[in-house]
Amino acid sequence: MALTQDFCVANLQLPDTPAGYPCKPKPLVTAADFHSDALARPGPVIPPFNVSLASAGVRQFPGVNGLGVSCTRVDMLPGGVVPLHAHPKASEIIIVVEGAVLAGFVSAGTNVAFTRTVRKGELFVFPQGLLHFQINTGETSAVVLKAYSSPNPGLQIADYALFGSSLPADVVTKVTFISEAEVRTLKKLFGPSAVPS
Amino acid sequence: MALTQDFCVANLQLPDTPAGYPCKPKPLVTAADFHSDALARPGPVIPPFNVSLASAGVRQFPGVNGLGVSCTRVDMLPGGVVPLHAHPKASEIIIVVEGAVLAGFVSAGTNVAFTRTVRKGELFVFPQGLLHFQINTGETSAVVLKAYSSPNPGLQIADYALFGSSLPADVVTKVTFISEAEVRTLKKLFGPSAVPS
Amino acid sequence: MALTQDFCVANLQLPDTPAGYPCKPKPLVTAADFHSDALARPGPVIPPFNVSLASAGVRQFPGVNGLGVSCTRVDMLPGGVVPLHAHPKASEIIIVVEGAVLAGFVSAGTNVAFTRTVRKGELFVFPQGLLHFQINTGETSAVVLKAYSSPNPGLQIADYALFGSSLPADVVTKVTFISEAEVRTLKKLFGPSAVPS
Amino acid sequence: MALTQDFCVANLQLPDTPAGYPCKPKPLVTAADFHSDALARPGPVIPPFNVSLASAGVRQFPGVNGLGVSCTRVDMLPGGVVPLHAHPKASEIIIVVEGAVLAGFVSAGTNVAFTRTVRKGELFVFPQGLLHFQINTGETSAVVLKAYSSPNPGLQIADYALFGSSLPADVVTKVTFISEAEVRTLKKLFGPSAVPS
Amino acid sequence: MALTQDFCVANLQLPDTPAGYPCKPKPLVTAADFHSDALARPGPVIPPFNVSLASAGVRQFPGVNGLGVSCTRVDMLPGGVVPLHAHPKASEIIIVVEGAVLAGFVSAGTNVAFTRTVRKGELFVFPQGLLHFQINTGETSAVVLKAYSSPNPGLQIADYALFGSSLPADVVTKVTFISEAEVRTLKKLFGPSAVPS
Amino acid sequence: MALTQDFCVANLQLPDTPAGYPCKPKPLVTAADFHSDALARPGPVIPPFNVSLASAGVRQFPGVNGLGVSCTRVDMLPGGVVPLHAHPKASEIIIVVEGAVLAGFVSAGTNVAFTRTVRKGELFVFPQGLLHFQINTGETSAVVLKAYSSPNPGLQIADYALFGSSLPADVVTKVTFISEAEVRTLKKLFGPSAVPS
Repeated sequence: MALTQDFCVANLQLPDTPAGYPCKPKPLVTAADFHSDALARPGPVIPPFNVSLASAGVRQFPGVNGLGVSCTRVDMLPGGVVPLHAHPKASEIIIVVEGAVLAGFVSAGTNVAFTRTVRKGELFVFPQGLLHFQINTGETSAVVLKAYSSPNPGLQIADYALFGSSLPADVVTKVTFISEAEVRTLKKLFGPSAVPS
Repeated sequence: MALTQDFCVANLQLPDTPAGYPCKPKPLVTAADFHSDALARPGPVIPPFNVSLASAGVRQFPGVNGLGVSCTRVDMLPGGVVPLHAHPKASEIIIVVEGAVLAGFVSAGTNVAFTRTVRKGELFVFPQGLLHFQINTGETSAVVLKAYSSPNPGLQIADYALFGSSLPADVVTKVTFISEAEVRTLKKLFGPSAVPS
Repeated sequence: MALTQDFCVANLQLPDTPAGYPCKPKPLVTAADFHSDALARPGPVIPPFNVSLASAGVRQFPGVNGLGVSCTRVDMLPGGVVPLHAHPKASEIIIVVEGAVLAGFVSAGTNVAFTRTVRKGELFVFPQGLLHFQINTGETSAVVLKAYSSPNPGLQIADYALFGSSLPADVVTKVTFISEAEVRTLKKLFGPSAVPS
Repeated sequence: MALTQDFCVANLQLPDTPAGYPCKPKPLVTAADFHSDALARPGPVIPPFNVSLASAGVRQFPGVNGLGVSCTRVDMLPGGVVPLHAHPKASEIIIVVEGAVLAGFVSAGTNVAFTRTVRKGELFVFPQGLLHFQINTGETSAVVLKAYSSPNPGLQIADYALFGSSLPADVVTKVTFISEAEVRTLKKLFGPSAVPS
Repeated sequence: MALTQDFCVANLQLPDTPAGYPCKPKPLVTAADFHSDALARPGPVIPPFNVSLASAGVRQFPGVNGLGVSCTRVDMLPGGVVPLHAHPKASEIIIVVEGAVLAGFVSAGTNVAFTRTVRKGELFVFPQGLLHFQINTGETSAVVLKAYSSPNPGLQIADYALFGSSLPADVVTKVTFISEAEVRTLKKLFGPSAVPS
Repeated sequence: MALTQDFCVANLQLPDTPAGYPCKPKPLVTAADFHSDALARPGPVIPPFNVSLASAGVRQFPGVNGLGVSCTRVDMLPGGVVPLHAHPKASEIIIVVEGAVLAGFVSAGTNVAFTRTVRKGELFVFPQGLLHFQINTGETSAVVLKAYSSPNPGLQIADYALFGSSLPADVVTKVTFISEAEVRTLKKLFGPSAVPS
């Protein structure tokens, strides 16, 4: 079921549907709806990762609603890490615009890790729903632009899912075999009070 | 792009495509292609989880190719665990046919854990691509049937992705903040030599 | 066009869309939305088929909205019949959890009937939109669980379509060549006053 | 998953896939691949329906492969009938280009019959997978053009599914409640030896 | 994501969504919703093309909402032209019901023109999103029926996009290399005041 | 119909299908398949546009096959132009990484032009299938990265479609109303011998 209009700028005031937000009335749509500066500046630095994230998904950039594509920008200090995470609804291509990063993902089923150093101007692709990461292994900051195959790719960070949710430590240990002591330590780092909004 | 035939029994000898396997020639298709006993018996028990998994996806049951649905069966000893995992390509409904299990998933973005005890005859649904688990909290074995919204849902188990792949321990620590000592311990449990085929 | 949220629990109070119901606001969603006991007990017995049907589609189980999967449960008395029917929007896998049934479907175009006895623990798959049936040929009750590739597969029972609608008997005869006498007899059995709600 | 080429003319010599046939190499494609005279003349008259069917689906018109649309033409003698049938993979719009027909379909679930006389130049739409029919109620021939939302909509005619397949008469009776005598009579009319190729 | 109802007649009063309009409540749906005379008569003649267009898309024929198909009718005077245009959301099959036309499209990337004379009863298919046209090269009127793989295919006529929008002449010249003098001449023909509603 | 594997690296040696290329055998896949330097350097300058194009679509970057996303890079000299064009199979987001550009598209149906100056770090989105352009209105070079909602978006440049194909000048004039003199002039610029491979 493809998009059934020229475009469908999201009306974020109305309830979402499985295919996206209802459309803003066409007479109210202007060029500004298709333009965004959401990635023009880095977002705030997120401890303990030493990276910042700026997003241009449907909620920040309503013009992408229904169009099957969105973007983010990540700025990584030296040693900064985009922690292990997956996008449930989208594949992702990264392009490194400054610096260099180690990028990798783990295949499902075979558990093969595919990793590469991605240098300035180079691309790497993470298939939909698979756990992946980036590490700034260089001595200078890195800037990475990312494109997704969905206006709303979703973002599940393993640390927050494991240690930042309301799952009790003993449950996390049972379903991951990570020791309860380790879980408790990490809950202090990623626990609910630490979850970024 | 919907299926473009009445059915398309997978010819597993030919290369797969993004939409599934090429079709077995129709004159060779028989009723046996639409029938499977892949779930009639439990699979072998998988340590350390104390559960067994039998699958009826497209490779075990070629008749589901292109049809958007498949099944598995999990048998859980008391205390057995379906460890934290995600299906990159499918949502999943479970139905408990014996015993009772604690089922849960963590939402992306908000990191809310949704958990429930699911008793005999009851259902729980895990949305596509989100990390989820089950624990047999009862004193008897549990049997759980599962249906997926894909003939090939994929299966990424967090433990094997984190500790069973070729990612070096220091990289795992960097992208998860799990201590390197803990990672090394878990690599012994889930490391490549321990990965189930 | 894939689901564009982590999940989209149906708000059944709002008008449906081609892709499903609008989403319940996320802050109101609880674990109960992903849990259902709709299949925990058999539905009422439907004469003259001697089967009962319990459904966990989007209207009974709003958590499946947008997720591409749903379930039903059929209990079949000895000799009971799931009459010839099709699901316009979904393929279906059945698993027999008690007893044994004769399952079959007819391919379109070639009109080949694919039939098999499906025993406890075994599976059979019915491709989307094709007429299919089950008969409990055993001497004990049978219980069959069913999974669909849609949250709302639709259900068109041939008997109700032919004999239970407002189509006059002579029209039914014209478009099926079933004799008008036979149509009138069957209209008594399946006619509007006999349609289950 | 949309078409991933400008076009993909079917190579009917290669095995089909769930998304359609592999593509003919682009350098071999000519304008003739996008042109068809498959509907220029009526097909042969099909007894006992007194209609003729000419098809321009992917097998007759390989240029439509992957494009989500195809056509047929039906010529109906006075009293001729397009018998009750469904397309498992497509919705259908008809346009009457000569004469007038009574068109109808039955909704699933509610079993409401929606019928209308469709006159020259008028349209009627049959939603995907639902049983529908047309009758030439006029005194002159009718010509009906039909468009489908798939290059290969499938065609399941109730009469052939019920009476023209290898299903034994007693099974047909069990799953439809049509009397075995009636089934045997209709098997003579629609039985395997009578199935059109 | 397939349609999740038997049908979903558009409620044009509610805001559209990426998958189409919300559904009219089922109890209010009648056979009239699936029937249309929108193509029964030619539309008004559009200068300077000497063709008329009548449309049966979702706004004229709400019954096609969510069904993946719609139709138009074009009547072409001798020498009349369906000017170069594309449908962003749909492939198109034409069938010539009177007269003969020269039909053609240009492939993307390779810029090969595929053109054919299409005579009465013959078909031609234009793949989604590609620029195409028809010319009535005969001495009599031609009538062409068209089916699309979307309920709302969209229509971008090159002349109106280039010369009928608010783009200044110098911008049009820059992005097309058509001389500014020529652009100004054509803006008089297709300029905003000349755009058909 | 979503991707039915973790990933499906294109085997470009096999015939394409409507959903993409068949998959390279998994044991042969390496990290290099998900990495690309196709955009690391500008492509060759294309006269008369004074821009260069480097592509990372499925043919240059087989790892994106089936993943619903791809990228290109455009370098624009001062005054350089990305001429009016459309992608039949994808929406596009641009991000300006150096300089500033005037970006615009024309809506279908309403022929409204939506244009904006897009500065360094800013985004603009072009909906699928609509004619759009960019002009480097600044005094320095501009570099623009582009992401598409398809591994193979297609590219139809209006100039090459109108003046670079084998369509005779009189046909182009008939279907665009551009004067035959102007068409002949532009055919010299964009004619077959001038088409970039």
